[in-house]
Amino acid sequence: MAQSKENTNNSARSKAAAAAQSTGAPVAQTGEKRPRTTRRPYYNRRPRRPQQPREAAVPIHIYPLGGLGEVGKNMTVYECNGDMIIVDCGLVFPDSDMYGVDMVIPDFTFVVQNKDKIKGLLITHGHEDHIGSIPYLLQKLDLPIYGTRLTCGLIRNKLEEFGLAGKTKFVEITPRQKIKLGCFTIEPIHVNHSIPDAVAFAIDSPAGTIIQTGDFKIDYTPLACGVTDLSTLAEYGQRGVLALLSDSTNSERPGFTATEQKVAAGVRNLFARARNKRIIIATFASNIYRVQQIIDLAVEDGRKVAFSGRSMVNNTAMAQELGYMHIPEGTLISVDELNQYPPEQVVLITTGSQGEPLSALSRMASCSHRQVRVGPGDFIIISANPIPGNEKSVTKIVNGLLLLGAEVIYESMYDVHVSGHACQEEQKLMLTLTRPKYFLPVHGEYKQLKKHALTAASLGIPTSNILIAENGSNVILSQDEIKLGEPVTAGAVMVDGLGVGDVGNVVLRDRKHLSEDGLVIIVATVDSKTGKVLAGPDLVSRGFVYVRENESLMDGAQSIVENALDRCVDEHVRDWNSVKTRVREALSSYIYRRTKRSPMILPILMEV
Amino acid sequence: MAQSKENTNNSARSKAAAAAQSTGAPVAQTGEKRPRTTRRPYYNRRPRRPQQPREAAVPIHIYPLGGLGEVGKNMTVYECNGDMIIVDCGLVFPDSDMYGVDMVIPDFTFVVQNKDKIKGLLITHGHEDHIGSIPYLLQKLDLPIYGTRLTCGLIRNKLEEFGLAGKTKFVEITPRQKIKLGCFTIEPIHVNHSIPDAVAFAIDSPAGTIIQTGDFKIDYTPLACGVTDLSTLAEYGQRGVLALLSDSTNSERPGFTATEQKVAAGVRNLFARARNKRIIIATFASNIYRVQQIIDLAVEDGRKVAFSGRSMVNNTAMAQELGYMHIPEGTLISVDELNQYPPEQVVLITTGSQGEPLSALSRMASCSHRQVRVGPGDFIIISANPIPGNEKSVTKIVNGLLLLGAEVIYESMYDVHVSGHACQEEQKLMLTLTRPKYFLPVHGEYKQLKKHALTAASLGIPTSNILIAENGSNVILSQDEIKLGEPVTAGAVMVDGLGVGDVGNVVLRDRKHLSEDGLVIIVATVDSKTGKVLAGPDLVSRGFVYVRENESLMDGAQSIVENALDRCVDEHVRDWNSVKTRVREALSSYIYRRTKRSPMILPILMEV
Repeated sequence: MAQSKENTNNSARSKAAAAAQSTGAPVAQTGEKRPRTTRRPYYNRRPRRPQQPREAAVPIHIYPLGGLGEVGKNMTVYECNGDMIIVDCGLVFPDSDMYGVDMVIPDFTFVVQNKDKIKGLLITHGHEDHIGSIPYLLQKLDLPIYGTRLTCGLIRNKLEEFGLAGKTKFVEITPRQKIKLGCFTIEPIHVNHSIPDAVAFAIDSPAGTIIQTGDFKIDYTPLACGVTDLSTLAEYGQRGVLALLSDSTNSERPGFTATEQKVAAGVRNLFARARNKRIIIATFASNIYRVQQIIDLAVEDGRKVAFSGRSMVNNTAMAQELGYMHIPEGTLISVDELNQYPPEQVVLITTGSQGEPLSALSRMASCSHRQVRVGPGDFIIISANPIPGNEKSVTKIVNGLLLLGAEVIYESMYDVHVSGHACQEEQKLMLTLTRPKYFLPVHGEYKQLKKHALTAASLGIPTSNILIAENGSNVILSQDEIKLGEPVTAGAVMVDGLGVGDVGNVVLRDRKHLSEDGLVIIVATVDSKTGKVLAGPDLVSRGFVYVRENESLMDGAQSIVENALDRCVDEHVRDWNSVKTRVREALSSYIYRRTKRSPMILPILMEV
Repeated sequence: MAQSKENTNNSARSKAAAAAQSTGAPVAQTGEKRPRTTRRPYYNRRPRRPQQPREAAVPIHIYPLGGLGEVGKNMTVYECNGDMIIVDCGLVFPDSDMYGVDMVIPDFTFVVQNKDKIKGLLITHGHEDHIGSIPYLLQKLDLPIYGTRLTCGLIRNKLEEFGLAGKTKFVEITPRQKIKLGCFTIEPIHVNHSIPDAVAFAIDSPAGTIIQTGDFKIDYTPLACGVTDLSTLAEYGQRGVLALLSDSTNSERPGFTATEQKVAAGVRNLFARARNKRIIIATFASNIYRVQQIIDLAVEDGRKVAFSGRSMVNNTAMAQELGYMHIPEGTLISVDELNQYPPEQVVLITTGSQGEPLSALSRMASCSHRQVRVGPGDFIIISANPIPGNEKSVTKIVNGLLLLGAEVIYESMYDVHVSGHACQEEQKLMLTLTRPKYFLPVHGEYKQLKKHALTAASLGIPTSNILIAENGSNVILSQDEIKLGEPVTAGAVMVDGLGVGDVGNVVLRDRKHLSEDGLVIIVATVDSKTGKVLAGPDLVSRGFVYVRENESLMDGAQSIVENALDRCVDEHVRDWNSVKTRVREALSSYIYRRTKRSPMILPILMEV
């Protein structure tokens, strides 16, 4: 299987490193030198309890295989004393320049090479960027999966589509109940996030304890399941934490992320405003808390509830089955039944809050939804913020819905969404409670990792103990030092349809070229002995120009090609590659001169 | 010349209108019916002065040809008593689904049809979305251009590239000096915006006075040129304004846009922070005020100034020539001279604040700038906010610059940018001063026009006097009524290289298809009499899969095609189109089954 390495970031990074080295400056990754501040925060003033005696020489290796320098495809491998564990195995959605690619998964080469050492796959929570690549990993090796109940449920659903659910071993874990895997002892710690049943992991090893937060925030008044388990985190901090790997998604945002209760209040106000209208509300299918609170408000208001969108229907069914969601008898109706009720007696909860072109909401906006017609009687709430890159798609849907006469609530001022990730003050709390010796910001683009590193430095962690690693780094940690070993294979493998890794940079470059200027094909049948053209040349173009409107251009092209072929015959050029090159160059320069465009030009010669 | 109509918006709109009509509801465009509020603002309480006697029956037509339901390609035609004038002639940058398109301009059919009536082209200011399509219009008809000095300078630069500058008549206008064009008398009114020399127009006609704001904001403490001329606007309000066409860009933002002075203060603080470093600052080349204030700070700080990026170099040269920019002798150096000075003695002002891939800043981030190497000695300020759709490109540049070790200021919290457009409170001030009978929100996506309409309604303008028009609308206004006439031709013409309008929906659909799954070409030479294959079939693919990694797939495809061709011979199918269809279908279903992809399949048969 061909695997294409992540290109842009890595190459930029090596250039950066090279540039830094050539100027004698420290390599960017090992934290920049900043003047020590005179202020010493309490964090560093408190005396540490004596460390548990450890085998001093034992190091632990951390290999991030995804999630660094990007938002998504989180995956980290830990190795100590010859044992390995993996935390998370997510996917990332393709950038706009990855034409036609459906999703991107980590490169599993390193994991496959070490499959005999791996004791298990631990999952922090059930979002796609943490579980989405599991089926592709399990196609390569068998592994037991450790996750909380909801997380396991979501993974099982996913594996069923791949026919892998039956043969995979699941181990359901519970916060505070330790798991032993090889030389590792792992304690799941409850954290708040935008999906229930999320955990951080305290990973104890002969080298020391590492805390990986997964995605988290700190919600003092969550709708269910309690606050992030601050005491356990503090306990580990007291005992001594070798390293903290913490979520950097919101590291650019000052302050605290608001509580989910705020959304409850915001949505309640809007329900009051929508009194005589049908309510349609779009949100993330995995945000079970949010969906539950919408259902509660609907029940209060005497409205029936329907779900639209495949993932909304599936996720809510599973959440009900596992007891994470409670819908009173007689409340749930199907989308087909919607029109049997007056508008003020229904709420439709739907996918599509990110403007996904095939989602239910998008189809409503373009009048192509099978059961739902949007009109002036609708009150539509988009309970989500656009993820960077999705702004234009969301705007398109909002415009469409407004044009149909619906009232649409989409602005942040209405308090219909809060983030699932910690902002700077929460990140500081996490750092302060766990008091790590070393700090590795994870989950984020480089700018976010960098900001998180600065936040840590502002708390007094020496910059030499802060490391911004990258995918494929081999971070070696011990009580004595942090250093980088020989990097391992890591990268981005593109999935397109059933193909995993069969689309690479050459294919993408061709797709980009074709998308910008189209192509012109030249076909000719030639006599294999004389080189004389027996049929053609025919010119066929796609994605170039309207041929009918550009007859003179295409006639000119035809003559250019004919002349080039004739000249080859006259000059006895018999090497077909040279003939093709000459034809291509002649046509290419003609077309550029006439149109300032450079379509792909494909000469095909058939010998008879 | 083929011209493709704007597709998505228009079709969604007609569906919306159809939906609204079928339910008996009023069509969206004519303002929604809202319950009258009991509160009557002072706006409506003051008695109007008696109107000037007018020829009561005379109507004025407003034909917006661009800028409605979109951000960009602003263009409006006014017609009264058989005379026409045009205000603005801008372009819009293509959406991400307009593969390979360079820019989009208005459809000029209506203007060309009426060229004998048109008295002139009036320009509010020199931004691309107001002047960018002028060269394309002038290729079709001669027109005198009316603009302020800087605006004319910018247009002249543009026309020179097209060889049109010499033969075009320019009339330089000045605020408060009226222009007479046919039955119209137009008064330019000074407004604040992010480019100097911007004006609104008060267009007086036998039907009444219309005020078109152009882009504006109200800056009580501008850096130069004075506050938006509120008194003249108020004077028109007192005399009676038939209609206001006002900028809707920021209609979703509450409050006021901050003054440009705030940026001056923000940048001054950053200059202090950057003491020992080279400063690189990216901003819009047209924001002469901003560039001037950076130069002033550089001079204060004893730094030399260099410009990078073609539009930055050109615009600042012109602004100096016309007296809009003042650079003390000895301050300006060329980019080539940068390295002759220590870092703390230079400021580089560059383009690229929107992450444009070929811009100077982008090349610095990817280490491919010819003269500038970015490193830890650089302090980089991005003095702009990403325009929606550009967030990811800007992030990519920020990541790249940070990786090179530079300090990068890119967040809004540093006060390094303010918008050039009016927020809700300023829009209210404009509405309140001009007191129009009718209101048409312009310049914006549908959601922005809608919000602006709601703002106007909240001031007491009856919703029946508010109209959200669309490109191609024929708005007929008189003292008695507002109504829609037969629409005129309007739409989006795509420019790709030298081609204007030769890329349309078919070409774009092909480019999209090619970009997603690539293509497979089948070529065969066949005997024209028997249909027997003499050479081939050969399969050539581009942008599909790595052929070398997928030999079994391609071998299978080869057999499928051979079998399909054989069967055609056996069954005596002699119609080449039928043969092609059968081959295409056989291969297409094989490939989909094996890969879940649908590349474009192009069978080409050559007869000998």
